[in-house]
Amino acid sequence: MQDKVFVREITPRAQDYSQWYVDVATRAELMDYSPVKGCMVFRPYGFGIWERIQGALDPKFKATGHANAYFPLFIPESFLKKEAEHFAGFVPEVAWVTHGGGEELAERLAIRPTSEAMICHMYARWIQSWRDLPMLLNQWCNVVRWEKATRPFLRTTEFLWQEGHTCHATEEEAERETLQMLDIYRETFEEDLALAVVPGRKTEAEKFAGALRTYTVEALMSDGKALQAGTSHNLGQFFARVFDILYLDRDGQQKHVWQTSWGVSTRLIGALIMVHGDDRGLVLPPRVAPLQAVIVPIAPQRQRQEVLEAVRQLHADLAGRFRVKLDDREEHSPGWKFNEWEMRGVPVRIELGPRDLAAGRVVMVRRDDGAREEVALAEVARRLAELLDEVQAALRRKAWTFTEQHTRIVGDSSSFRSTLEECRGLLVAGWCGDAGCEARVKADTGATIRCLPLAGAKTPVAEACREAAGAPCVHCGRRGGQVVVFGRAY
Amino acid sequence: MQDKVFVREITPRAQDYSQWYVDVATRAELMDYSPVKGCMVFRPYGFGIWERIQGALDPKFKATGHANAYFPLFIPESFLKKEAEHFAGFVPEVAWVTHGGGEELAERLAIRPTSEAMICHMYARWIQSWRDLPMLLNQWCNVVRWEKATRPFLRTTEFLWQEGHTCHATEEEAERETLQMLDIYRETFEEDLALAVVPGRKTEAEKFAGALRTYTVEALMSDGKALQAGTSHNLGQFFARVFDILYLDRDGQQKHVWQTSWGVSTRLIGALIMVHGDDRGLVLPPRVAPLQAVIVPIAPQRQRQEVLEAVRQLHADLAGRFRVKLDDREEHSPGWKFNEWEMRGVPVRIELGPRDLAAGRVVMVRRDDGAREEVALAEVARRLAELLDEVQAALRRKAWTFTEQHTRIVGDSSSFRSTLEECRGLLVAGWCGDAGCEARVKADTGATIRCLPLAGAKTPVAEACREAAGAPCVHCGRRGGQVVVFGRAY
Repeated sequence: MQDKVFVREITPRAQDYSQWYVDVATRAELMDYSPVKGCMVFRPYGFGIWERIQGALDPKFKATGHANAYFPLFIPESFLKKEAEHFAGFVPEVAWVTHGGGEELAERLAIRPTSEAMICHMYARWIQSWRDLPMLLNQWCNVVRWEKATRPFLRTTEFLWQEGHTCHATEEEAERETLQMLDIYRETFEEDLALAVVPGRKTEAEKFAGALRTYTVEALMSDGKALQAGTSHNLGQFFARVFDILYLDRDGQQKHVWQTSWGVSTRLIGALIMVHGDDRGLVLPPRVAPLQAVIVPIAPQRQRQEVLEAVRQLHADLAGRFRVKLDDREEHSPGWKFNEWEMRGVPVRIELGPRDLAAGRVVMVRRDDGAREEVALAEVARRLAELLDEVQAALRRKAWTFTEQHTRIVGDSSSFRSTLEECRGLLVAGWCGDAGCEARVKADTGATIRCLPLAGAKTPVAEACREAAGAPCVHCGRRGGQVVVFGRAY
Repeated sequence: MQDKVFVREITPRAQDYSQWYVDVATRAELMDYSPVKGCMVFRPYGFGIWERIQGALDPKFKATGHANAYFPLFIPESFLKKEAEHFAGFVPEVAWVTHGGGEELAERLAIRPTSEAMICHMYARWIQSWRDLPMLLNQWCNVVRWEKATRPFLRTTEFLWQEGHTCHATEEEAERETLQMLDIYRETFEEDLALAVVPGRKTEAEKFAGALRTYTVEALMSDGKALQAGTSHNLGQFFARVFDILYLDRDGQQKHVWQTSWGVSTRLIGALIMVHGDDRGLVLPPRVAPLQAVIVPIAPQRQRQEVLEAVRQLHADLAGRFRVKLDDREEHSPGWKFNEWEMRGVPVRIELGPRDLAAGRVVMVRRDDGAREEVALAEVARRLAELLDEVQAALRRKAWTFTEQHTRIVGDSSSFRSTLEECRGLLVAGWCGDAGCEARVKADTGATIRCLPLAGAKTPVAEACREAAGAPCVHCGRRGGQVVVFGRAY
């Protein structure tokens, strides 16, 4: 039957994880490939998730005093070159506009891979005095980084993101801002995306090109790889010096501002697929699901009218409070629809057939664990609200447990590789702080230091970190270093 | 004093309208120039207006069944070339990416000037059967059209817009959609932007490259020029044929879909400046104003604490219901602040000084007409809500009256030019339908046919149109044509 066709279309994770991922992304109609290499189309169902993520983050940005703005797509080459380290980090990935309006341009223009250069130029014009600080801006936009190997959502030539850019009078204030935005990310990832995350600091080798310190929120995917889900950079005064962003302080002195930048992108949709999805397809947390519930009538020809009337009434009752769809298509069987909406990850399915109607009830089925329950028609709205909360919480717990169970402490380099293979997840280990040791582990095992976890953060690796406290460097054996989290990364 | 400095910074409209426009746009901090020719920065105050416009339109798009999606920025040259007429219309304005990832590209990529070519390519993949129709998508994005002469918001190389793209089974349905979206624009322009508008059809000469019919909403600016504020195109089957967008109809036949596209852009912010602004600066309709009211304390040193406490309490009371700012900066005088917020177009100013505090009242001042009134502290929220509605309605009426008063009927070509100079606005006239007559008038007078007004629409030119019904062609004198609206355009 059609049911089976659908299920068969998704490659099992154990067979080929990458293919499973692509199957889910395309079959669930989150995205499609475009005719431009490395660029994808965000279909409404995928873009709807992004709209929910925006809807969760944007009010938090505004509540913390940030305003949205919009800066040009094009950055003159000379601007990008001003900050040498930053430029070196991005130039291999830049797309260049060389012609416009039928003429060759005098200076070629980069399509923004990130907007520090442009925004810092403007900040230098806008900021004069300490009264102009802090300056707290954000933009939601597209950026382009030319990629050789691309994967839907995770690594595409063009992607969507937000980039916050702020200026402050003091280093302390910039650091506070950097950590505040990291914490907004962490909170949103946990509460809205139901992810289990590890916030921490990046090493020098892994930090953003041009930053003083980069903080990250890392999340473990179900294949055992870590994903950098969001980053927040304390830029120090690097860009301020290059772009001459000066302010007249209260003491009459001209001083360089202290800056931050921070961003999350549509790769978060990739994280949702990989953390929550299963072999039947997508599983979406209710808070970011474009559809929270789908109503499927089971309507044999004879009782068709009564059943359809009942589900239409139910849909009308729920539509004001929930994102709910009535699937009353005639060309598909209920079984086919069950499979389709499961594959598309809708958190709750509501079934209503003639016997349910007679009994004045519906059947509600959770996508995450398949649990079924009968609910009186009059109680559906109340129970659905509860169920969505329960599903949201269950997904979060599951992600937490998964991460906890796939975290190991490793004491020395001889067992590093085997422990990594065995746990298929994160390794907690001591590190002396030497970039050479870090590079050596990477070369030997493919694992990088995902982060130096923030002290005191409640995370699924916190217990392992406590246990490993004081451990010698996993590569050289020196003591006196820190505990870090290793993993293979996307 | 500083007051005067501010007022003097804006060039009077009568002296130099273009300079006035730029002064308002920059001084009110709506935008700034960027280092990239023709590209501007949307500062938070300007972008905030765009967010309000999005907030007004997007729910209407969704309520009429449209979903948001996102398509690639890049369009391969071969795609753009597929529809020859469309390509010819846009290619002089295209920016080309020729290099990416350190290499020259095999095929150069256009930065989208509009997305028909890309979206139609995807539609051909997604649409198979009549069950897939209608397909109703929209995207909010940036587009690039290389412009020689640019003006903030009105004509910039990069701008922000939304572009809706739909596919339908029948021509009638596509036409209905085209007009529905036009009407959503009209309604939003009138109700939220407080514009007086003339919806109508474009002539063949003025229509969108590749469209069957283009509809427009035209608005008269205060310098007498008309602005095309939004357009809605019935694309017929032109793109469907070129991109092979076929569906299997109920009758078993493969048929081409019927399409529409429609868009409004950030040029609407330019319309707001020009329709409502005055020599003191910006005047914003409350519904799209990033700030609806500003509270300015008048606090002599002795009573500073009491006054500040009172305004802070007032601000806290209002902040949940209104977009309100408390300007308690110490470095500026109340008079300076009055001028600044007037210049920035905040609809209502609330003043509170020691005598007001003693009397338990505030003074509220309207930006649009300067009217002042005393309002009891306990009544401020109620009265502010009313006042904002009154200001919104007054701006709309004013725009309507202005357009009505700057509309004339013209009977023959000999008086065309002088009537246009005299009325500084729109001319209503007969037109035989001949493109030659249209071109001749344009060449002689600089005026183009802004639109063939929709029959029965309630507009500020409707009475003139009724009066002119049956008039002979203003150029050749032939009878049997239509009544059209001429104007000089942005």
